[in-house]
Amino acid sequence: MNIGRLQRKSVKNLAAYDPGLLVDYKYKLDANENGFDITPKARKKILREISAVHFNRYPDPATGDIRAALAKKNGVKPENVVIGNGSDELIHYLIQAFTDQGDKIVFPSPTFEMYRILAMANGAEPVAVGLDERFDIYEKELLKKSRGAGIIFLAYPNNPTGNCFSREKMEYVIRNAGCLVVVDEAYFEFSKKTFINLMRGRNNLVILRTFSKAFSMAGARLGYMLAHRDVTEIINKVRLPYNVNALSQACARVMLKEKSAAVETILAEREIIYDLLKDDYPVIKSDANFLLIKVKDGAKARKLFEKSGISIRIFRDGALKDFLRLTIGMPEENRAALKIMRRGV
Amino acid sequence: MNIGRLQRKSVKNLAAYDPGLLVDYKYKLDANENGFDITPKARKKILREISAVHFNRYPDPATGDIRAALAKKNGVKPENVVIGNGSDELIHYLIQAFTDQGDKIVFPSPTFEMYRILAMANGAEPVAVGLDERFDIYEKELLKKSRGAGIIFLAYPNNPTGNCFSREKMEYVIRNAGCLVVVDEAYFEFSKKTFINLMRGRNNLVILRTFSKAFSMAGARLGYMLAHRDVTEIINKVRLPYNVNALSQACARVMLKEKSAAVETILAEREIIYDLLKDDYPVIKSDANFLLIKVKDGAKARKLFEKSGISIRIFRDGALKDFLRLTIGMPEENRAALKIMRRGV
Repeated sequence: MNIGRLQRKSVKNLAAYDPGLLVDYKYKLDANENGFDITPKARKKILREISAVHFNRYPDPATGDIRAALAKKNGVKPENVVIGNGSDELIHYLIQAFTDQGDKIVFPSPTFEMYRILAMANGAEPVAVGLDERFDIYEKELLKKSRGAGIIFLAYPNNPTGNCFSREKMEYVIRNAGCLVVVDEAYFEFSKKTFINLMRGRNNLVILRTFSKAFSMAGARLGYMLAHRDVTEIINKVRLPYNVNALSQACARVMLKEKSAAVETILAEREIIYDLLKDDYPVIKSDANFLLIKVKDGAKARKLFEKSGISIRIFRDGALKDFLRLTIGMPEENRAALKIMRRGV
Repeated sequence: MNIGRLQRKSVKNLAAYDPGLLVDYKYKLDANENGFDITPKARKKILREISAVHFNRYPDPATGDIRAALAKKNGVKPENVVIGNGSDELIHYLIQAFTDQGDKIVFPSPTFEMYRILAMANGAEPVAVGLDERFDIYEKELLKKSRGAGIIFLAYPNNPTGNCFSREKMEYVIRNAGCLVVVDEAYFEFSKKTFINLMRGRNNLVILRTFSKAFSMAGARLGYMLAHRDVTEIINKVRLPYNVNALSQACARVMLKEKSAAVETILAEREIIYDLLKDDYPVIKSDANFLLIKVKDGAKARKLFEKSGISIRIFRDGALKDFLRLTIGMPEENRAALKIMRRGV
C-alpha cells in the first residue's frame, strides 16, 4: 500500500525534527540546557518522592497540587494553569486547539523552530515575518500577517538570537492582535522580564514557561502555560488526560520548592564571554543562557568544535548562515569553547 | 475577545475527557490498572537508574535502547518501533499524521473512548459501527465505512466489553482494508493473542502495546507501536522530539527485563468472579483484566459502590446503560466488589 499517500497533506512536506547534535561529545553546549544539574539535596528529595509513587496507577490527570503551587507563585488561579509534557506539547496543543486546516500561525524569523514544525504537523500554515537588522520584530508587519490567523508566537527572549524584542513593540502586538498571542518565556529566569502583567483584562494572552532551563529539569519534561480560563478550558479538551507522568509530577513538586540553579553564575559567565568575544566577532547581547555569534567560516568552526568534542549549534543556511549558538555551560566548558573561538573561526 | 470562536471547529463539540472517577475511594477498580504494583526489587532498580539520570539534559529523543530491546522481543527491527507518552499519545499521532480535516476514523462501538475523542481533537470525523449482540464486529460494515477513511481502530481485546473479536472477522478487515488498521493490544499480556504475525508483507497494520496494564506502569506513561517503516517514518515527523521523559525511559529499561506482574493471579481471580456472577448477571467472557456486567439498576449500583468506597466504571447511557465495568484487582478488592454484587443490583 502507498502509505505516503495517506499522510496529512501538510505533513508530506515536513521532515522529522533533527536536533542535529554530535553523538560523541565531551561538552554539550548545543541545546540551551542548564550545565549545572540539580543539587544532590534536590535529587535526594526527588528519589524519596518517587519511591512513594504508585507506578501501577495512572497519574493525577489534573496535576492539581502542581497547578495550585504555580498559580500561587504567579498570582493567578489554578484554572489559569496547564502543565505540559514540556512546553513543546503546550505549543502543539495551542495550534491543535486553535487552528482549522490551513489557518495561519504567525511568528518572527529566525525563532524557535517548533512553531513552524508544529504548525505544519497540525495542518496549519506557518507564516514567518523576518526580524530587522537588530533582530527586533516588525510589529506592524506581524499584526498585518496575523489577520485571520489562529496564533502569533513570540519567544521572549528569542531563541536562537538570545535578545528580548523591544517591550513597546511587543505591547503593540499584544494590545492590537485579533487572535491568540503566545509569549514563550522559556528563559524567563535568565531575562527576569515577563508580560504576565498584561494578562489582566485580556483573555488572548498566553504565557509559556518551563522547568527545562533554569530549573535543570529538561529530562523530566515539564512546561506550563498561564492563560485565561477561556483558553485553558479549550486546551483541556484536546489535552491527553494523563499527559504528565507520575514521576515528572514528583519532580515538579520538589522543584517548586527549590531555587532555580546557578542562574547568577551563568549570567556572569555569559557577560565574561560576551566581553571576550565582542571585539573579534559580531555577538548579540543576550537575555538568555546562550549567545549567538557570527563567525567567518561556519564549516571551519564546525570542524574545530567537532574535533574538540564540543557539541554546539551551527546554522548551515538561511538568515543565520555562519552563525553559531553557544549555550553558556559550566566554566570549564565555556573555557574550552572560548579557546576555539580565539583561534579565529 | 470571543476565544470560543477561535477554536477548531471539531473541538467545539468536544467535551474535556472526564475519567469519571470517585475522588474518595478505598479500592480503585475503575481504570483497568494492575492492582499489583511493581515488585520492591523492580522499584529498587528503577530508583537506582533514576539516581543516575542527568535531569538537566534532554532525554534521548530516539529512545534508542528501549526500541532496540522491544524490537528484539517482538521479532522486528528498531525502525519498526515508536515509543509514546502512553498509547494515548500514539493514537493521537496516528490520527494527526494520517488524516486531513474531515477524514474519517472508523471503529466499532462501544470501544475505547479515546479513538472518538482524539479523532475530534484532530479535526477528523469519528465513525462508529455498532457491535453485534455477542459484542463482535460487523466486519463488512466496518470495511464499507472505511472507504476513503484514514484509519480503522480495533481494540483487541475490546475495552470496555473485554472480549476478543472473532479472529476470522479481524483478519478479514486487516486483509481487505484500504487504509491503516490499528490493532490496539493494550491487554495482550492477559489475552495472549496478537495479530503481529500479519505484519509480514503488509505495511498498513499497526499494533499498539503498553506497559500500563500487565507491567503495572500506568504512572510512567509508556506505550509503544509496532509498525512498518513506512508508517513509523511518518509518525516520527509529527512526534514531539522529546516525548518520552528521561525518568520513564529509565523505568522502561528496568521493566523490559522484568516479568509482567501477577498476570496469572489476575486471570485466576477473573475466572472465579466470572463463575460466581454468571448465574445472577449477564457477564461477558473476558480476555482482559476486567469484566463487563449488566445490572438491573445502574443508579442503585452506583450508590452502593460509592457508599462502600469502591470506585468502578458504571455507564450511564447509550448501548451500555446499566452495564458496569469491574477491573480485576487484588483478591481483597475483588471480594469487596463481589459482596455488593451479591446483594443484587
